[in-house]
Amino acid sequence: MPVGLKKPEVNNILNVPGIKLASVKAGIKYKDRKDLSLIMLDEGSVVSGLFTKNKFRAAPVQVCQNHLKAGSHKRALLINTGSANAGTGSEGFDNAMQICSELATNLKVQAHDILPFSTGVILTHIPVNKIVGQFTNLIESLAESHWLEVAEAIMTTDTVPKAYSTKIKTENEDIVITGISKGSGMICPNMATMLAFIGTNANISQSILSRIHKEIVEDSFNAISVDGDTSTNDSFILMATNQAQNKLISNEGDKDYEIIKEGFFEVASYLAHSIIRDGEGATKFIHIEVINGKTKNDCKEIAKKISHSPLVKTALFASDPNLGRILAAIGNADISSLLIDKVDVYLNGLPFAQNGSIASNYDEELANIEMKKTEIHLKVDLKIGSEHSSFWTTDLSYDYVKINAEYRS
Amino acid sequence: MPVGLKKPEVNNILNVPGIKLASVKAGIKYKDRKDLSLIMLDEGSVVSGLFTKNKFRAAPVQVCQNHLKAGSHKRALLINTGSANAGTGSEGFDNAMQICSELATNLKVQAHDILPFSTGVILTHIPVNKIVGQFTNLIESLAESHWLEVAEAIMTTDTVPKAYSTKIKTENEDIVITGISKGSGMICPNMATMLAFIGTNANISQSILSRIHKEIVEDSFNAISVDGDTSTNDSFILMATNQAQNKLISNEGDKDYEIIKEGFFEVASYLAHSIIRDGEGATKFIHIEVINGKTKNDCKEIAKKISHSPLVKTALFASDPNLGRILAAIGNADISSLLIDKVDVYLNGLPFAQNGSIASNYDEELANIEMKKTEIHLKVDLKIGSEHSSFWTTDLSYDYVKINAEYRS
Repeated sequence: MPVGLKKPEVNNILNVPGIKLASVKAGIKYKDRKDLSLIMLDEGSVVSGLFTKNKFRAAPVQVCQNHLKAGSHKRALLINTGSANAGTGSEGFDNAMQICSELATNLKVQAHDILPFSTGVILTHIPVNKIVGQFTNLIESLAESHWLEVAEAIMTTDTVPKAYSTKIKTENEDIVITGISKGSGMICPNMATMLAFIGTNANISQSILSRIHKEIVEDSFNAISVDGDTSTNDSFILMATNQAQNKLISNEGDKDYEIIKEGFFEVASYLAHSIIRDGEGATKFIHIEVINGKTKNDCKEIAKKISHSPLVKTALFASDPNLGRILAAIGNADISSLLIDKVDVYLNGLPFAQNGSIASNYDEELANIEMKKTEIHLKVDLKIGSEHSSFWTTDLSYDYVKINAEYRS
Repeated sequence: MPVGLKKPEVNNILNVPGIKLASVKAGIKYKDRKDLSLIMLDEGSVVSGLFTKNKFRAAPVQVCQNHLKAGSHKRALLINTGSANAGTGSEGFDNAMQICSELATNLKVQAHDILPFSTGVILTHIPVNKIVGQFTNLIESLAESHWLEVAEAIMTTDTVPKAYSTKIKTENEDIVITGISKGSGMICPNMATMLAFIGTNANISQSILSRIHKEIVEDSFNAISVDGDTSTNDSFILMATNQAQNKLISNEGDKDYEIIKEGFFEVASYLAHSIIRDGEGATKFIHIEVINGKTKNDCKEIAKKISHSPLVKTALFASDPNLGRILAAIGNADISSLLIDKVDVYLNGLPFAQNGSIASNYDEELANIEMKKTEIHLKVDLKIGSEHSSFWTTDLSYDYVKINAEYRS
């Protein structure tokens, strides 16, 4: 059961003029579930992509990166579950390329207009024929209203589809931003087994789209972790169809720049937090906030150490205020500015460590009550500077082990 | 149930002339279990200490480090379980100092001749009076034959005591090396919630003891991980009573230098591996060997990434050859020399990845058989150099979560 997250209402997910979507059953790994999706962009659309930093990046990630180098006007995104096409060498790369070529022929576009995405088991070859055999079917099913359907078709161990829309006001016209994502394990900053696609009809240049992309990723998808494992296939895509009547946003000084950036960040944050709320085996949604550090990076390092500690995560699962484990995790962060005699730590506002030691008014009864809640806020005050950073994670439960021990079965 | 590890036979654990030990019930956390131990060294003994790199190092660690600076001739080690005396600020430090002073008075030695050690729950104050009240009792119980008894008294979540002895031949006399250790969770390189004490009667200078210490720790206690969490209290102590008749070892060119180093390494390796075999919830003993890397450090980084990946560890627990997760873990190591198109990986000798892709003769039936074994050897051949490194870890099971969720209860 995800923590405070329900399946989105179809009425809340808005169409984006210029983007059509479809998904079909290709039988890649399971029968009778939709596992192949297409996102089609009208001519004139621009795209920006950010990808995993794992050195074993999957074949489709390599192809995406090559195709984005060939130009930023893209026409189609093809996404399959059931096989990650990772650890598949040159054969995997050739397979991904062949799929793009065949789809390009069907769509009467260039192969480099296509971006391929795969998620599923690593070290398995992708069934090219099963995929190609569904292209006619896929293209016939395209519709602007299929965002939620595709959000469902790209799920792996996710228990609910993840989708979110917002509307922003620009000078001339309201603009839509809609996004979908998948991911629930192998989740760690720098892109996790995570796919996210966010589209807008805004009129915006590719260079500004790309700039906004890098600005919003740091505190959204790069600030979450389920298990500290970075996947081979992570991809996060922004798409703009340029069909709205707003004045072209082509400069960061433009009036609508901050407005659209906030809109993208709202959608990206919602989707990133949804991944954590639906994290494998998660029973709690944990927000770790580190404040008053010397640098933002120092704050993030500490937040990451806490969020990656199995001992902290099992204590949170057990609702046991074994809070010393949090101090131990802080002490493991590789930062030189830490002064342990200054560190204060709060659990949902309740001080339990003051100046690196047990808080004088610490009350375990109260801590017990807070630990039982499903929404946990840990705040670490370093008291050595003015920077801050937030990170979101899950607890570590029996079900995490169960899900991951049984994933392939 | 530990993996391939039994309680040591009392006859196999040898006395070390010049070292006496005792343990008693002080009721620190639990009634009716021995939780306070004393290791007494004859005058003339030398000691070397290595400690946690966690910045929240516990009060007893700080005291040990101060006392070792005051001189390397030590007389007594005092060890308690039930409270780590970590995250306890200046009050914790004063408590540890008071305990040393009181024990020094009882033993008619200086306070800085005492080294204190604590293990247990972090962020709890240590009950000074309960501990001091047992000193007479402790001193009366001292005997050379109590190594195994103390190995039992220092356990926390350990399921079996860890002790090992070896005899080495020097020119003049056979020398004894006996060691004990504890630890089973919060275990990660750079000293884990781990205490280890190894003693010998060898005639050896403190500077050479200290040199050997640094040489043997890297591939023993710093090459193991249960959960990647480094504790606040880790301590690893070598003691030499200098009572044997071997020619003083005071130079690394000395004839017996390599012999005694190998003896210490044998004991340290056995104790380190015992911690993994008894790792919290462990059902498998996993040896990760990375060969033909550019530097030893590169090899160790990759071995650590594999051993810290919850996805690899849950797949090993499930005996599911979801081996792509190992490639993903390798790809997450932050080393620049990696060439993914060269990487070969073997599971108990069975090749499953060749040149970064699925091995051409990979046979999942055979992989299934190997995955079911309790002793797993993963070998990664980087094929870019001639360095190598080994690392030992456990799988991640339901019981790991259970033990850590319930530790304080």
